[in-house]
Amino acid sequence: MMGSIATSQEARLLCRENRITNTAGVAPGYLQANLLVLPAKYAADFYDLCLRNPVSCPLLGKTSFPGDPHTVQPDGCIQSPEFDIRTDFPKYRIYENGQYMESRRDICDLWTSDHVGFLIGCSFSFEDALTAAGLQPRHQRSKSIVAMYRSTIPLLPAGVFTGGRCIVSMRPYRPEQIPQVREVTRPFLSTHGEPVAWGWDGAKELGITDIDRPDFGEPQVFEEGEVPVFWACGVTPQIAVESAGAKVDGVVFAHEPGHMLVTDWTVNDLQRLRPGIV
Amino acid sequence: MMGSIATSQEARLLCRENRITNTAGVAPGYLQANLLVLPAKYAADFYDLCLRNPVSCPLLGKTSFPGDPHTVQPDGCIQSPEFDIRTDFPKYRIYENGQYMESRRDICDLWTSDHVGFLIGCSFSFEDALTAAGLQPRHQRSKSIVAMYRSTIPLLPAGVFTGGRCIVSMRPYRPEQIPQVREVTRPFLSTHGEPVAWGWDGAKELGITDIDRPDFGEPQVFEEGEVPVFWACGVTPQIAVESAGAKVDGVVFAHEPGHMLVTDWTVNDLQRLRPGIV
Repeated sequence: MMGSIATSQEARLLCRENRITNTAGVAPGYLQANLLVLPAKYAADFYDLCLRNPVSCPLLGKTSFPGDPHTVQPDGCIQSPEFDIRTDFPKYRIYENGQYMESRRDICDLWTSDHVGFLIGCSFSFEDALTAAGLQPRHQRSKSIVAMYRSTIPLLPAGVFTGGRCIVSMRPYRPEQIPQVREVTRPFLSTHGEPVAWGWDGAKELGITDIDRPDFGEPQVFEEGEVPVFWACGVTPQIAVESAGAKVDGVVFAHEPGHMLVTDWTVNDLQRLRPGIV
Repeated sequence: MMGSIATSQEARLLCRENRITNTAGVAPGYLQANLLVLPAKYAADFYDLCLRNPVSCPLLGKTSFPGDPHTVQPDGCIQSPEFDIRTDFPKYRIYENGQYMESRRDICDLWTSDHVGFLIGCSFSFEDALTAAGLQPRHQRSKSIVAMYRSTIPLLPAGVFTGGRCIVSMRPYRPEQIPQVREVTRPFLSTHGEPVAWGWDGAKELGITDIDRPDFGEPQVFEEGEVPVFWACGVTPQIAVESAGAKVDGVVFAHEPGHMLVTDWTVNDLQRLRPGIV
């Protein structure tokens, strides 16, 4: 089914109906997004957290005002008037007081007039570019969920969000491919950009001791001579919520790792989305 | 002398003549800047490094084109036509092939038509706000240079810049002052913002084992019950150059730690300088 999905809106409707779950490789060319939804009183701190940690938490957009599940700023990110942030991800995780409670297909029942949603860039967005360069990620070929790990990279604190650490996604490559892998993903600044570490030494520096036991997603098979290459991952925001613990009271929602929103932005929007002063 | 300096241009001229060296507390209200000057071929990678590490390397401006020492983009950062990036810092550090060689009062002799300069936000900019809140930094009262340390916080790699770690500056406060210290400095996102760690446990997490032996600047006296509070520091870019080593060939310049440029921007420009999408 995945190959036949041409548009972002088509993909979102299939996700809404749960006819797609893992969104890796879905609707090629469109940027995908991670999710965090918070009570409004934490929105300013979370916004700062994103600005201070743009590699793991690259902010793509946010809902226009508390309680509105239908529109996203800036314009262009989501263009369908029937968009609904409560249903258009394939799967959601529910947190209460910083603790993961359960996963659900939608969050309509739990959404309140006080909730603000943030869309965070996703590394799936640069996988088409890797594939085009002859570097297709392993988990796309094996139709599994990318392997994700807790790392020791500190998430720089912002307000109530203290003590978090970055989550990283991993794709196996041969050492001689790494310069090209870095170059291909470098321009994707708003979707995690180039790798944060690579090689077995890199894994060690990140505090990852067992590559076969990811904390999220599925283990990936290494072929002869391959080493792990790590990118910052948009699951990080939910770990920030876990780390804040009871300091974040109320109900928080996130996407289920690997189960993203397909946005209306394409790779052609990346340059415009790039932060920067000059 | 410091109390009588009213304008940024006056401060720059005194720095040019080396009548001011340590710029802490000089020209209150004006934003101060750290410096890195590179051969043009490394400018894109360094720009990415800043965007990926905005807490330690918050980009305030860059010279308009290679070889031009007189104008800075964006407009407003430096308004004096007689500005000269080669003389208007009180003191410079010279690096060759990633190695520190010597410090100089100006870099006129070594500047080439290929050099690009970057101005990086400086934590001195939020010290007036701390003072106004009754939290004057110790090193201002003791007229010493703020203590700076190498930390374990990784600098997320960008192109040729790999393997670096963040430098942090330290100011002693009592534990009960820390919530207010965090709040006062939080809005200063473009000048390192709120602390990255605090307390003796925070020092340990940053890998700082001897607080009395800073790597740059001067040790600070702790009063009864005080603990260290750490901010990311604009000396980090020169450490990125050191870490890149021979990968960065040619001559690189940086400011001497504690010896900053006084810009024409004031704290009133901070909101406009704040990165962000919405």
